[in-house]
Amino acid sequence: MTTPRFQFTVSATDGSARTGTIDMQRGEIRTPAFMPVGTAATVKAMKPADVRGTGADIILGNTYHLMLRPGAERMERLGGLHAFMGWDRPILTDSGGYQVMSLGELTKKSEAGVKFKSHLDGSAHMLTPERSIEIQRLLGADIVMAFDECTPFPATEEQAEQSMERSMRWARRSRDAFDSGGEHAARAALFGIQQGSMFRPLRQRSTDLLLEIGFDGYAVGGLAVGEGHEQMCAVLDHAVQMLPADKPRYLMGVGKPDDIVEAVRRGIDMFDCVLPTRSGRTGQAFTLDGPINIRNARFAEDREPLEPGCPCPTCSTWSRAYLHHLVRAGEILGAMLMTEHNLWFYQRLTAGLREAITRGELDSHARRFLDRYRRAASV
Amino acid sequence: MTTPRFQFTVSATDGSARTGTIDMQRGEIRTPAFMPVGTAATVKAMKPADVRGTGADIILGNTYHLMLRPGAERMERLGGLHAFMGWDRPILTDSGGYQVMSLGELTKKSEAGVKFKSHLDGSAHMLTPERSIEIQRLLGADIVMAFDECTPFPATEEQAEQSMERSMRWARRSRDAFDSGGEHAARAALFGIQQGSMFRPLRQRSTDLLLEIGFDGYAVGGLAVGEGHEQMCAVLDHAVQMLPADKPRYLMGVGKPDDIVEAVRRGIDMFDCVLPTRSGRTGQAFTLDGPINIRNARFAEDREPLEPGCPCPTCSTWSRAYLHHLVRAGEILGAMLMTEHNLWFYQRLTAGLREAITRGELDSHARRFLDRYRRAASV
Repeated sequence: MTTPRFQFTVSATDGSARTGTIDMQRGEIRTPAFMPVGTAATVKAMKPADVRGTGADIILGNTYHLMLRPGAERMERLGGLHAFMGWDRPILTDSGGYQVMSLGELTKKSEAGVKFKSHLDGSAHMLTPERSIEIQRLLGADIVMAFDECTPFPATEEQAEQSMERSMRWARRSRDAFDSGGEHAARAALFGIQQGSMFRPLRQRSTDLLLEIGFDGYAVGGLAVGEGHEQMCAVLDHAVQMLPADKPRYLMGVGKPDDIVEAVRRGIDMFDCVLPTRSGRTGQAFTLDGPINIRNARFAEDREPLEPGCPCPTCSTWSRAYLHHLVRAGEILGAMLMTEHNLWFYQRLTAGLREAITRGELDSHARRFLDRYRRAASV
Repeated sequence: MTTPRFQFTVSATDGSARTGTIDMQRGEIRTPAFMPVGTAATVKAMKPADVRGTGADIILGNTYHLMLRPGAERMERLGGLHAFMGWDRPILTDSGGYQVMSLGELTKKSEAGVKFKSHLDGSAHMLTPERSIEIQRLLGADIVMAFDECTPFPATEEQAEQSMERSMRWARRSRDAFDSGGEHAARAALFGIQQGSMFRPLRQRSTDLLLEIGFDGYAVGGLAVGEGHEQMCAVLDHAVQMLPADKPRYLMGVGKPDDIVEAVRRGIDMFDCVLPTRSGRTGQAFTLDGPINIRNARFAEDREPLEPGCPCPTCSTWSRAYLHHLVRAGEILGAMLMTEHNLWFYQRLTAGLREAITRGELDSHARRFLDRYRRAASV
């Protein structure tokens, strides 16, 4: 029995939510899935085996960072991103477009693509749909994202429409570039990205255009850009259901634990976010009773684990007092242990959602989780 | 059969060198031993289980850092340093005297002890022999160091003599303070420290005074302070043999791999040094062919491990090209993987010396090691 290139199987649904698996050559992805972010060929402060130990089935790599350092052609010569970083399971790469806007110095945007200067050394680069797909192929990505423009927020309906229409033309070019990728196209998958900002008719138009092209999965783009939790949920209320039920749906760059719970309830299957890793490096820990900042003086002699009952290595071994000490002292081990706990928290969160959907108890599970998480957070 | 408080057993000698074990309540220490430095209750960038995985039997903690943060009394309330940091094997603590001079702002030195201001927040503190020993007891140290003054280098014979004589008076007070430590004194060990700078008669006088008091082990102090490899070896030529053969001899703060080899040949049993950990964080890796700086452009596409043949986790999994990328990008994982390799290197170095002594082949082993290490380093 050969492993399929890309096969999404829904094993249970509960309302709009679903749970299942994506089978790929490099392994199975359980959905809803949280993908830790491995920006520069490393999930920061974590060894790959420990990332896997948190329960992660797939990680994300950033095309923008990797094309600048170490460089896509160099990465190919070194055997690809998987061999380079020592992660043999699926990797999803973004298209680079979002980081060009947020990190690079944009010098020209046209129908062809975007020219920009590197935030590292000021060197000039260009990203087009064709080049973005080529880079993702050189990296050896398992799931490739179409090159698009993340519409700025806020945007007028006219701005949002023009931006979306261009992204859909780029989606077509991304599809063509991917399909000409030979061996890589035969084992990898390509996702399209729905745009349209906060405007329902534009989200529908974007969906129609994407479906004409056809993709292995569909992302909801242009959210988590400052619109806030309520407005994000309002967009998801209509945007997710437009997407085909038999393909995975990916909410890019999301999010806080409560964002993830609400998005899963609306039918999202995949997430990525820097929050657990970045927060871990600044002393914030996620717990069932809301986030805590371990630098707070009240933890100086607290012998409890970060989150009582958490089975992660950090909580199994060390006290809040020790983590408080490490983070205050600026010790690398503090970043390591906090990051590991936070990634466990996110994986336990999605595992809990998968189980609740399987049992048909998502609503009560979500309500219980959110009540506890938000009550404590608002104290 | 009960575990002894402190028992040093020499299993083989080769010239002046010896190999054996120190048995203590918290575990066995194989000598010659290299002790990784865990300054602030962490061997930087390493989990304790991975420190143990390198082969370390014992680590060092810094009294100066720990008394300032988190504080000795707080540490005792938290169950001691072992429980705090999750390391259940022996810990040696220094007396704090050296760091007061090198890091703190010394405000008064007298026969009583030293007053200084913290480098962290400028707060005023005092260290005396009695307080140093009390702090080491509160931390729960297994091997306690007498409080002394590390004679500055260079020093005139008169300066060196006055400094040494004071240190010997402090050694007596340290012994008395340790012996009144109750349960702690019944399971821990106390080491005295030979001083005398570069002057042989002073080293002899210091040794005589220490032997009158009596200690579980003896350190050679006042070296690795800028005198250089040749002069250090010249002092060791006479200073080590003064110390009793049936007690462990510890060369504090040493050193480079070739320093360690030469000191073992002269009868030293224990070492500590920040070099493998600190170098790991700045991109220097130790290899049998000398140190290399992984930031060097020639490693950008080098698919070999840091040190071909090294069995450490870093060399088993990742290439020089990957480490080059991580260190250049300032990634925490770079510090983690480089540190782990360097600690493995130091533990393999001392393990190799132990085996060579057992076989009676230390001279040829040392010559082979030094020839290869230095030839490459001088290229």
